[in-house]
Amino acid sequence: MDCVAYQGEAGAYSELAVMEFFGEGFQPKPHVSFEKVFEAVEKGVCKFGMLPIENSLAGSIHRNYDLLLQHQLPIIGEYHLRVKHCLIALPGVKKEDLRKIISHPQALAQCDGYLKLFSSVEVEPTYDTAGSVKLIQENGWRTIAAIASVRAAEVHQMSILERGIEDNAENFTRFIVISAKPKIEGKEIKTSIVFTLQNQPGSLYKALSVFSLRDIDLVKIESRPLVGKPWEYLFYIDFAGSVEDKAVIRAIENLEEYAVMVRILGSYQRHRIPKAGQE
Amino acid sequence: MDCVAYQGEAGAYSELAVMEFFGEGFQPKPHVSFEKVFEAVEKGVCKFGMLPIENSLAGSIHRNYDLLLQHQLPIIGEYHLRVKHCLIALPGVKKEDLRKIISHPQALAQCDGYLKLFSSVEVEPTYDTAGSVKLIQENGWRTIAAIASVRAAEVHQMSILERGIEDNAENFTRFIVISAKPKIEGKEIKTSIVFTLQNQPGSLYKALSVFSLRDIDLVKIESRPLVGKPWEYLFYIDFAGSVEDKAVIRAIENLEEYAVMVRILGSYQRHRIPKAGQE
Repeated sequence: MDCVAYQGEAGAYSELAVMEFFGEGFQPKPHVSFEKVFEAVEKGVCKFGMLPIENSLAGSIHRNYDLLLQHQLPIIGEYHLRVKHCLIALPGVKKEDLRKIISHPQALAQCDGYLKLFSSVEVEPTYDTAGSVKLIQENGWRTIAAIASVRAAEVHQMSILERGIEDNAENFTRFIVISAKPKIEGKEIKTSIVFTLQNQPGSLYKALSVFSLRDIDLVKIESRPLVGKPWEYLFYIDFAGSVEDKAVIRAIENLEEYAVMVRILGSYQRHRIPKAGQE
Repeated sequence: MDCVAYQGEAGAYSELAVMEFFGEGFQPKPHVSFEKVFEAVEKGVCKFGMLPIENSLAGSIHRNYDLLLQHQLPIIGEYHLRVKHCLIALPGVKKEDLRKIISHPQALAQCDGYLKLFSSVEVEPTYDTAGSVKLIQENGWRTIAAIASVRAAEVHQMSILERGIEDNAENFTRFIVISAKPKIEGKEIKTSIVFTLQNQPGSLYKALSVFSLRDIDLVKIESRPLVGKPWEYLFYIDFAGSVEDKAVIRAIENLEEYAVMVRILGSYQRHRIPKAGQE
């Protein structure tokens, strides 16, 4: 069975993204870091890698953009995972038994409104969502619950006391799928590129004109100052179209006239953010 | 003495940013969340608030952009803090005594190369950098060290075994300063705005033309899809110039013709990212 590398422990949101995107017939495989995910795909240990690239509340994950530039693995797909938090405890434990709720600080913050409903329960941050569930299970703690994914409860055979306890239903993480070989198929293809520009007035406007003059629609744009090079900027752009389209080929050629560096990260099928309740 | 609200515990990197930006004569005041920082400034409990808005490795902190939109507190300053990690232990403890090193997962990841130099030391993630130092100090653990800021060592009267142990010297966090009243002074003024556009081909290009036609230089640009509104985009833009400049006033008026919403977050003195070794 082909395996898909992800970062985190069993039950992590990344594992859930692998399962929802690939379905059955693929084996999600945990790795301790993003680097190890890239290595696993590069060495052929896993056929694919699944990496978070941006979160609707927390922003872009520059680290994975850096790793995409350091490696030669194309993006071949994307997936928007809705982050749905659950309150998880040992089987038989009831809400009124709880004295403490533990989870990663970001998950606790995202359930702040829900946590306020508990009057005499202590809230304690930990390093990981799925790791908190494991901790409770291993220690047999019957007065502690964790906030984590539905998958974390399954993996550790724990009970879900409540689902969908996040304050903001609009919490999505966008994942990208990397592979050793490019593969462009499906409808609504988009392309991700990275480029750098000299910081001259109007240089970005000129660079964007290569797309707008060809009616190529931008889906994402982000600038990032290059540390140590205060006069150069790095840009991430996603646009509609494939690197096999004539207009796109010409736009990229045109961009190369202005840009210090242009790198195509991949062309792949677009996955739109589902409306709340539709995913 | 005027106080400056920040999120985190004493010894957090945010506290260090307050101290470096404001110097003596201001009292840094810890708060449990970003919301509480906004509240403290709104209610006049603290004169200023200091908030992380983007990190060179981890990206923009959308949560604080959201809070800027929800509140009416202008940005009046910015500061780039270099994130310099230290290895911290109880006084008298030596490196060869260590059996475990603890810290926030992000800090551990940023010191991965350094941690590999320790052959028989376990690495354990915790919820916070400064909190890890406090934990070691309170428990008198003599075989455990933490990774945190130089300030965390000072606050808890602990020893620094080594400084600058991060793998990447180019790790900066950009902080913004908020206040109840706008205050524009100094050289190199920049302005931060947020706006939304209908997702029509070329709409961003048109929007950017209001700046390029007036030779206003963009310093930052970032798009963010509006979840639940797949046809609308939110943009963050920073550009050179003050809202008191004629060209800027006209550019904003012009932008309002295209945009669904435009909001000025503030005009303030630019702080450039220092070159490594110069900060």
